Amino acid sequence: MTALDTPGGARAVARCDALAGAPYSDMEGGLFRAYLTRAHRAAVDRVAVWMEEAGMTARVDPAGNLVGTYAGTDPSAPALVIGSHLDSVRDAGPYDGSLGVMLGIECVAALHAQGRRLPFAIEVYGFGDEEGSRFPAAMLTSRAVAGTLDADLAAIVDGQGVSLAAALERFGGGPDAPGGNIAAYRDALRVPGRTLAYLEAHIEQGPVLEADGLAVGTVTGIAAQLRYALTVRGMAGHAGTTAMRLRRDALAGAAAMVLAAEQMARGDDSDVVATVGMIEALPGAANVIPGEVRFTLDVRSGSEKRRDRVAAAILERFREIAAARALELDAALIHDLASSPSDPALMDLMDEALVLAGQPVRRLVSGAGHDAMNMAALCPTVMLFIRCRHGISHNPAEHVGPADADIALRVMLGFIQRLGESLAA
Amino acid sequence: MTALDTPGGARAVARCDALAGAPYSDMEGGLFRAYLTRAHRAAVDRVAVWMEEAGMTARVDPAGNLVGTYAGTDPSAPALVIGSHLDSVRDAGPYDGSLGVMLGIECVAALHAQGRRLPFAIEVYGFGDEEGSRFPAAMLTSRAVAGTLDADLAAIVDGQGVSLAAALERFGGGPDAPGGNIAAYRDALRVPGRTLAYLEAHIEQGPVLEADGLAVGTVTGIAAQLRYALTVRGMAGHAGTTAMRLRRDALAGAAAMVLAAEQMARGDDSDVVATVGMIEALPGAANVIPGEVRFTLDVRSGSEKRRDRVAAAILERFREIAAARALELDAALIHDLASSPSDPALMDLMDEALVLAGQPVRRLVSGAGHDAMNMAALCPTVMLFIRCRHGISHNPAEHVGPADADIALRVMLGFIQRLGESLAA
Repeated sequence: MTALDTPGGARAVARCDALAGAPYSDMEGGLFRAYLTRAHRAAVDRVAVWMEEAGMTARVDPAGNLVGTYAGTDPSAPALVIGSHLDSVRDAGPYDGSLGVMLGIECVAALHAQGRRLPFAIEVYGFGDEEGSRFPAAMLTSRAVAGTLDADLAAIVDGQGVSLAAALERFGGGPDAPGGNIAAYRDALRVPGRTLAYLEAHIEQGPVLEADGLAVGTVTGIAAQLRYALTVRGMAGHAGTTAMRLRRDALAGAAAMVLAAEQMARGDDSDVVATVGMIEALPGAANVIPGEVRFTLDVRSGSEKRRDRVAAAILERFREIAAARALELDAALIHDLASSPSDPALMDLMDEALVLAGQPVRRLVSGAGHDAMNMAALCPTVMLFIRCRHGISHNPAEHVGPADADIALRVMLGFIQRLGESLAA
Repeated sequence: MTALDTPGGARAVARCDALAGAPYSDMEGGLFRAYLTRAHRAAVDRVAVWMEEAGMTARVDPAGNLVGTYAGTDPSAPALVIGSHLDSVRDAGPYDGSLGVMLGIECVAALHAQGRRLPFAIEVYGFGDEEGSRFPAAMLTSRAVAGTLDADLAAIVDGQGVSLAAALERFGGGPDAPGGNIAAYRDALRVPGRTLAYLEAHIEQGPVLEADGLAVGTVTGIAAQLRYALTVRGMAGHAGTTAMRLRRDALAGAAAMVLAAEQMARGDDSDVVATVGMIEALPGAANVIPGEVRFTLDVRSGSEKRRDRVAAAILERFREIAAARALELDAALIHDLASSPSDPALMDLMDEALVLAGQPVRRLVSGAGHDAMNMAALCPTVMLFIRCRHGISHNPAEHVGPADADIALRVMLGFIQRLGESLAA
């Protein structure tokens, strides 16, 4: 038997691998599965079959999400939604998103194999648009499901001039449904009150679990993010004719700021991260002292308060550096995303599931955004992170060990069991 | 009387101002006088008249240099050459180069007005190509005069496809000479042994004299220069998902290096300058930890030994920083220019001339290159730097005070007098 035939974490990984090439990719020699493309349609049709084999009924919702339903014993009870996304970035790895969908299917397959029904239904979502790699918008589909989609859908057009409406129509609906219809897009909304909880398993896309030798960890929430555009102005000058003591070197000042940001985030000894990812020195010649430097600063934390405290301290330090060097500093806030904390009770259940699966309890924040942050508008949410090698993601080198996926599956099944018990209690 | 009619430093400045517009510029609304252009020809014709009014005979040499000769009492004695350049960068200031030529003319005008002849002839050169703003070569003309021109002249073509040969022919020769001829270009060579010394007055193009409240200073030489291309490699990662302690941030490492270069050059407390003028972080997105950073390092000093010592110490420190942060570092030497020291005896004469003119003695190195570095192959050289406002040059805001130019003129005349006395002694 190959991994594809063996239920469990290894099969989930193998299925992701199987979805990483033609016809499930629109890119030659790599994986690129953007929302509502031919590759997306092929993947939806393939995964729908897996859902049905696992004991679910499968449908495509009005936003192009694939939804598998495994009924519970009490038809009136709100459902547990397990989800993640089927779309990918260009030249992606196979596991970002897809693994969470495949593990949801494996959960149901395992319950179905044992003939077990829970009091509540389980619905597995394969969201269509998390990455935003096609249209100038991201997470359209989970926002539609959660009812927080405020975009003007008719105005959304991709880089090739194809409208969201046309793409949706071409994509079509579910097996028994008419073609996709933009006017019905928001009908993807789940009826409020009909969702018990949202569970998302996802590769960590970072190196924390690997560094700590752990397969999985409970996600405390999605980090709050601040992003600044900074400009440092000094005085340009000839690199040969301007004595060191007479310089107002914008790059030397910016370098001090880059180091300060690193040291202050690190020194906070918390989950706060600070990153300078872009830098530009002007005029930008080897023989000219930079007169102006522009750079970005990105600060994140699971706690908005911590994020704001550290960001304010970093900016204050930047101002001190600028003043000490007679440089001008402009700091423009260009991005402010609130945090999306996991539900405390669900995190406790997840920790219990970790213990049941023989895993150390470990909580970590998600620095990246996920569908869970949208689903939080609809119901309590929780996420489980899975170790990924070297923290590499959005890259063909993305790798998840089948044994880790199997641990994740056991934790998810434990979580479902504990969730059922907690309702009964 | 306007400044243009009054002999002395003010007239030299005013003449530079007069040469900063049409027909002496090829650029609308600014100064751009490139080698062998119509503007260059107009300037040569204009300056030749001033030379003759000052008592010289003027000619254009085979490389397009304007040469004014003021005979000495001993026709067999080698001549003192006073020179600088008449060409400019695009959107230039009026004084870079031109002021040195004008002050040479004023020296002769002052001697001529007093009916004084020195034992040696004075030849004032207005070099045609110092900036290299037209052809892909620089300092063609002083290299031709010094006999160090190793370029394939027939192959030199400007950005518009005009060859040096065609440009020279169009430019033409002196008043009594036939058209310029590329085959004769190297005949611009001064006969070896026929040059007593080379004196160049030039604006400082830096802020040192201004900072010290001085009008002029003796140049100790043209700095030796090293230039490196550096590459720092760490590990790219998601700005949100990679904990601070797990990062190998190439930009944070490069920032520590930029600061180290600044601190070590400054800490040397000498004429050593170190500059990082270009920096690039890859992949270069606000939400990605830089995995690779490329930057340049330029190190200069009047002494090659000091330059090499400080550069070696900086690179050693870079390697320590890279090692401490688990980063890879590549350092490629891309430029190594030897220094061109001024002649010690001529510097002493210049210092004496500073004292004669009531000026404090001050020596400083030239971080930028000048025609003097080529003339050093032919004869002992010395330069006099003149304060320029805020150290700004290669910019329309370039400014020199007429009183400073007057002080420079008095120092140059004192230098000529002391040179004559030193020969008689």
